[in-house]
Amino acid sequence: MPLLLAIDAGGTSTRAVTLDRSGRCFGYGRAGSGNPTASGVASAVAAIARATEHALAASSSGPGASVGVIAMAGQRSAPFVREVSARLAGLGVGRVILQPDLLGIFHSGTPAPDGYALIAGTGTVAARIQDGTLARVVGGRGWLLGDAGSGFWIGHRVARAVIAALDGQAPTTALTDLVLASVGIPAPPDSPAGREQALNQLVTALYARPPVQLSAFAPLAFRAHRDPVAREILVGASSALAHLTSVVRIPALTGPLVVGGSVLIRGLLAAPPDLRGHLVLPAHEDEVIPVSDGVVGAAVLALRSADTDVDATLFRELQLQVTQAATVRGAENPAGDP
Amino acid sequence: MPLLLAIDAGGTSTRAVTLDRSGRCFGYGRAGSGNPTASGVASAVAAIARATEHALAASSSGPGASVGVIAMAGQRSAPFVREVSARLAGLGVGRVILQPDLLGIFHSGTPAPDGYALIAGTGTVAARIQDGTLARVVGGRGWLLGDAGSGFWIGHRVARAVIAALDGQAPTTALTDLVLASVGIPAPPDSPAGREQALNQLVTALYARPPVQLSAFAPLAFRAHRDPVAREILVGASSALAHLTSVVRIPALTGPLVVGGSVLIRGLLAAPPDLRGHLVLPAHEDEVIPVSDGVVGAAVLALRSADTDVDATLFRELQLQVTQAATVRGAENPAGDP
Repeated sequence: MPLLLAIDAGGTSTRAVTLDRSGRCFGYGRAGSGNPTASGVASAVAAIARATEHALAASSSGPGASVGVIAMAGQRSAPFVREVSARLAGLGVGRVILQPDLLGIFHSGTPAPDGYALIAGTGTVAARIQDGTLARVVGGRGWLLGDAGSGFWIGHRVARAVIAALDGQAPTTALTDLVLASVGIPAPPDSPAGREQALNQLVTALYARPPVQLSAFAPLAFRAHRDPVAREILVGASSALAHLTSVVRIPALTGPLVVGGSVLIRGLLAAPPDLRGHLVLPAHEDEVIPVSDGVVGAAVLALRSADTDVDATLFRELQLQVTQAATVRGAENPAGDP
Repeated sequence: MPLLLAIDAGGTSTRAVTLDRSGRCFGYGRAGSGNPTASGVASAVAAIARATEHALAASSSGPGASVGVIAMAGQRSAPFVREVSARLAGLGVGRVILQPDLLGIFHSGTPAPDGYALIAGTGTVAARIQDGTLARVVGGRGWLLGDAGSGFWIGHRVARAVIAALDGQAPTTALTDLVLASVGIPAPPDSPAGREQALNQLVTALYARPPVQLSAFAPLAFRAHRDPVAREILVGASSALAHLTSVVRIPALTGPLVVGGSVLIRGLLAAPPDLRGHLVLPAHEDEVIPVSDGVVGAAVLALRSADTDVDATLFRELQLQVTQAATVRGAENPAGDP
């Protein structure tokens, strides 16, 4: 029976799994960023190929795969499609099918054809899924023009709050020491001159980086969640994400809300009770299903491309197998088990 | 009597005036950006030299000047100080003295030693002036990390509001047509596909520019001030500026508040009555004096560097002469006459 290849090509890491048409998983592989927008076409193709090689090597059932489904964010440029197809062809993979990362995420949480997805990582996006396709997508648009509630959005507010506090414009905050330490600036003596010096060092250090790297400060807001300034930022993020979800929701379509991305999975949904009480979480009548990546969903899409019906039983089996394969490889927790 | 040279080296344009120790003005010159942070050392020095040449050429009282005072924002790098001193020495200017732009702005509005200054142009900054020196400065820190209420801050919110509106995340706004037109994108047909296409074009166009150029949208908010979305942005800007002023104010120090920068002069302070009623303007018990640049103040600082006492009479005379000189040159309205 010819193998299927399913790939979740994310901005931080790429996961690949090989499976047969019955849904039995054979191999699992992992590599770095497979998103051409985030890391360039050559680097993304190389990561996708590396994850594929690992998955094929571990599959021990003959070389190659008849179909490779890649779930990924962003636009598919012609050079990327050409290069990734050629590279995978060289590894014995037949047809390559690109699918939106939102469908990979959604089907990592559910085999249902209808429902909703919400991702909040470095960026944010929400979607309504109808008959297994994206019926409506809102959000995204990047750090400068959109992505409210994202890791950048939180980290940017953290940086601005610290700078305003050091400048005497805003209340002091526990975030200041955390941000200064993370940038390697010693905590200033409690004097105007000391604060001014730390402020100048911080401003210089932050303008020397690409703005999007301010997202590195997002985890500091969660760490300092008892601080009123940090808490207000996190409540604002939760509220922006709840709003984004409300924009795609229609009364006529029920179904689970599948959520992914570090801001939700490691942040808002994992918030301690004293923070959780303040957050505005998406109002959803149906199940809310957290997932940590989109590789199970890519496998669902690969099976469906081979006309395999993925029912609830096969779906649970698939989740279990991928979790086991990822764990055997010593990788971090894959889908379905936040 | 040897001449004095006074220069207001701004981020958009540079103004120079020559005067004698009695305060009589002889020449006026104008050139492009004289700020090395905004336009690079070489370009800033060239603009300062060009404005100086014009002012000296028009002064018809012998070559050169004994002292040149340059009022300018930002840090004074050693290469800039070296180059500008050498270039002005070549034009016959003796000692070069650099002064903060905030003092130039402040003394363009008043000869008083004490008071406050607030600037809101592309960036924002507020200061308390005590005995003719800057006793406290807050704000600035640039588009990414500070400058709340600035032209960038307003323009950034305008862009985000338009993108959220086209995406269906936020209310429609009159800003959309204005922004699309200013970027050269045709108004979309009233359909989801039409809006999506305009949205993609707008996002691509805006990421292709340096972020700080979003400040070009600030005037659109004023033009659309009856639109609730635009008005909320402007009210937020006014509130940020009122807050910034409150941070530098202390009860023990009274004196005028001198205000400058396009957001205040051509925007908030020139707001039509139906907008003005919504704005939060700085609460100030003393006089609020708008100025359009810092060249009169640079002249005040030049006179004081030559031990000339600038009293109220001489100050008014200075304002009048500089206004006349700038008008004769066909330049736009100089200081003291917003």
